[in-house]
Amino acid sequence: MQIHPSHSTVHRSGSRADIRVPFTRVALTNGETFDRYTTAGPGSDPEVGLPPLRAAWVAERGDIEEYAGRETQLLDNGKAALRRGEAREQWRGTRPRPRRGAGVVTQMHYARQGRVTPEMEYVAIREGCDVELVRSEVAAGRAIIPANVNHPEAEPMIIGRRFLVKVNANIGNSAVTSSIAEEVDKLTWAVTWGADTVMDLSTGDDIHTTREWIIRNSPVPIGTVPIYQALEKVDGDASKLTWEVFRDTVIEQCEQGVDYMTIHAGVLLRYVPLTAQRITGIVSRGGSIMAGWCLANHEENFLYTHFDDLCEIFARYDVSFSLGDGLRPGCTADANDEAQLAELRTLAELTQRAWEHDVQVMVEGPGHVPLNLVEENVVLQQEWCHDAPFYTLGPLATDIAPGYDHITSAIGAAAIAMHGTAMLCYVTPKEHLGLPNRDDVKTGVITYKLAAHSADVAKGHPGARDWDDTLSRARFEFRWHDQFALSLDPHTAEAFHDETLPAEASKTA
Amino acid sequence: MQIHPSHSTVHRSGSRADIRVPFTRVALTNGETFDRYTTAGPGSDPEVGLPPLRAAWVAERGDIEEYAGRETQLLDNGKAALRRGEAREQWRGTRPRPRRGAGVVTQMHYARQGRVTPEMEYVAIREGCDVELVRSEVAAGRAIIPANVNHPEAEPMIIGRRFLVKVNANIGNSAVTSSIAEEVDKLTWAVTWGADTVMDLSTGDDIHTTREWIIRNSPVPIGTVPIYQALEKVDGDASKLTWEVFRDTVIEQCEQGVDYMTIHAGVLLRYVPLTAQRITGIVSRGGSIMAGWCLANHEENFLYTHFDDLCEIFARYDVSFSLGDGLRPGCTADANDEAQLAELRTLAELTQRAWEHDVQVMVEGPGHVPLNLVEENVVLQQEWCHDAPFYTLGPLATDIAPGYDHITSAIGAAAIAMHGTAMLCYVTPKEHLGLPNRDDVKTGVITYKLAAHSADVAKGHPGARDWDDTLSRARFEFRWHDQFALSLDPHTAEAFHDETLPAEASKTA
Repeated sequence: MQIHPSHSTVHRSGSRADIRVPFTRVALTNGETFDRYTTAGPGSDPEVGLPPLRAAWVAERGDIEEYAGRETQLLDNGKAALRRGEAREQWRGTRPRPRRGAGVVTQMHYARQGRVTPEMEYVAIREGCDVELVRSEVAAGRAIIPANVNHPEAEPMIIGRRFLVKVNANIGNSAVTSSIAEEVDKLTWAVTWGADTVMDLSTGDDIHTTREWIIRNSPVPIGTVPIYQALEKVDGDASKLTWEVFRDTVIEQCEQGVDYMTIHAGVLLRYVPLTAQRITGIVSRGGSIMAGWCLANHEENFLYTHFDDLCEIFARYDVSFSLGDGLRPGCTADANDEAQLAELRTLAELTQRAWEHDVQVMVEGPGHVPLNLVEENVVLQQEWCHDAPFYTLGPLATDIAPGYDHITSAIGAAAIAMHGTAMLCYVTPKEHLGLPNRDDVKTGVITYKLAAHSADVAKGHPGARDWDDTLSRARFEFRWHDQFALSLDPHTAEAFHDETLPAEASKTA
Repeated sequence: MQIHPSHSTVHRSGSRADIRVPFTRVALTNGETFDRYTTAGPGSDPEVGLPPLRAAWVAERGDIEEYAGRETQLLDNGKAALRRGEAREQWRGTRPRPRRGAGVVTQMHYARQGRVTPEMEYVAIREGCDVELVRSEVAAGRAIIPANVNHPEAEPMIIGRRFLVKVNANIGNSAVTSSIAEEVDKLTWAVTWGADTVMDLSTGDDIHTTREWIIRNSPVPIGTVPIYQALEKVDGDASKLTWEVFRDTVIEQCEQGVDYMTIHAGVLLRYVPLTAQRITGIVSRGGSIMAGWCLANHEENFLYTHFDDLCEIFARYDVSFSLGDGLRPGCTADANDEAQLAELRTLAELTQRAWEHDVQVMVEGPGHVPLNLVEENVVLQQEWCHDAPFYTLGPLATDIAPGYDHITSAIGAAAIAMHGTAMLCYVTPKEHLGLPNRDDVKTGVITYKLAAHSADVAKGHPGARDWDDTLSRARFEFRWHDQFALSLDPHTAEAFHDETLPAEASKTA
């Protein structure tokens, strides 16, 4: 969807006819044009879904098989479906059988073999860089291209510090609110405004079906936290979780096409007591689930003990790890403490183990961090985790402004991205207070796009400042229409202008 | 005005009965209390104004005189008043005759003599620090207490890097919109949410009268840019400005009680050509007025050539300089360029000259600066200007997000304050687009308070993080009412919470 009449979609072609990378072209009133990175995709009828852009690329590598797949169960959609005896609003579009590799089919695997995939070429055109940079960064683990073979609808996208800083938007239903249609609408809305990936954090009813609708309509990689669904399957009692239930949930999601999964495998039994003296203890939902399981069962985290099993599964679908920071600080006072850093050391160990399986990895980071401690987070993560991409939630630079935490966190996010964080998880104005609605999703995405771009400019990323310069020239020459068209959010810019000076004359002179 | 039912005003007393410093006490549901710095003042009937808190302190020093003062002229209120033959809505409260020192009556003068004034003691209680820190920092020029003898209504407040980071809010009418009552309302609204100073940037009709109403009702120091009014007096033609017209305007404002004035004395004739290759040239209104004057008259800036005359005037009223950065960058591309830095060197020279007169000085800074160049701005300003307080506008970290420039600039503001900027000039969502309304003023102030506080926390300012910790404890214990009461903006926090979960039970459990 284009958001402004001066915007159109143009494509840059690759070495073969089916590599066509979309950009948003902004037509300026002085006859010039400006091309912008876009994540909106070609647009879809939600009931039909997107065309399988990557299907041929995946198939022609000749290393995957179709298979019957796991049978969907009523419990996959939660207790309500079980009660009703049927799932609601099931996916009505076409759905090929699931695919998986006979062996390892990850972009990292190909990159390490020296092979340039169409996905890598697509990414290089998108980023305006040499394809060898893409291949070598993926091979080294310094960047990932999250691309499940069962999500061929997604446009390939790279996450790594040598590339544009990316933004993730969280959506998802909960027991309290929202329908499948609303979640699909939030997905489309988020990518319209520039979300580079979307995480479906649903915890309520219809989890399986909601995810299916989202993936089939998503032009961007989809991430999940599978422990949320696994917990629903054991009636919300963390102590009853098992590796088997978790494994089954992971395979369910691999077959649907989830591109990356947050795995809280660094929450070790011995780290839990380190959080006792904190002001806010454990605030990560996944972290507290796993800490609760460890304590209840007096056993080591099964995600840690079964980590190699997970790697073997991920390798066959090309699912990327997002190694969760279950012990991240929940307030500035708890930042960079022993619990957080102990977990980070374990995430570094797990990064290496995933790489031994050629599985792609990024590492999650905080959270809440005072500005003076932000840089240390990136420095330690990059050093310990051998430059695996860092993916942070904000961080919030202060705790005193609920209702404005998109801003408190954008301050930390811009700073941490400038120092090398590869992807930022957005925070909306509803953080700590409630569930984001459509407007909050837009505000969150725009706020994080400006933070990410501020970091790109600060890093001197090639070409990043061209956008600023083009808009600044329009501003200096009073080309108001061009200022609006070049804005991250043309609608808001024009509406604010018109509040004071609505006359057409005041936009052209 | 208190903004929440759990808030009340308490006073901490000094060495004498008339030193009573207000704090906002937040009563928590667990029986504890938390005291917050407040700028709201005791509240006023706009038609009556505030009581003259400092009148006795000023008088008892025995170094000032009352005098007849300059006669107000119709032109002081602009062309419309001239046309009408009368000023509108003149100030109706009491108005003593103006005062001025027989000699130098600045806080810096007393501090250098080793004298501790009631103003310094008031400030020390407010900041929770030793009064000797206040005196010595003011004596050294590293901090200022803007306190015109003709603005006794203001509560003393200090600006310097050893103290809490301060926030200024700009208000002011223009030819296009708004009445006197609206501007007084914006003043009260801005200080209710925490503005530490307010600048009246009026450029339209009724300038003199609007300022009178604002000063008489302001519990915080008031700043102005007198060249704006001087320009109105010469029919908007910058080339016709003279030292005499400017001097007359400055005295008019000194007598009213303006506490600090932006003076663009660093825009030298030889610096103007340095802006020729910029993308956005000269964007400061004062800067372009003075550059225009210099070019039209082929003469050196009269603010520079008459700087000592200005110092002599300021010394007798205790007006502080805010040395304007008329050549500040208007986009990230122009940041830290030769024009900007050449002017900064001149501002450093003028700082020293003002100090020779015992006149208080702060130095203004940018504007638009990419994050990687932010620190250099503070480092150079502090070094060249011998640690005179730095007062920056943002800076915006990117130019691509009109409509969200309160956020793009809060990112730069938090960073620059962490590195030592003493006061931040807010930016509202309407920046570059139109004039801020009441909601924009609130959003701008809250956004800058959270940026300033983030910097206080990052600097490890004594006690700053107590606020975060108190709120975080409330959050961890699900004391929702306390979370709201402790928030920078309790109304928004509670409203957002209630959107998802309006039930009372969900605030107590």
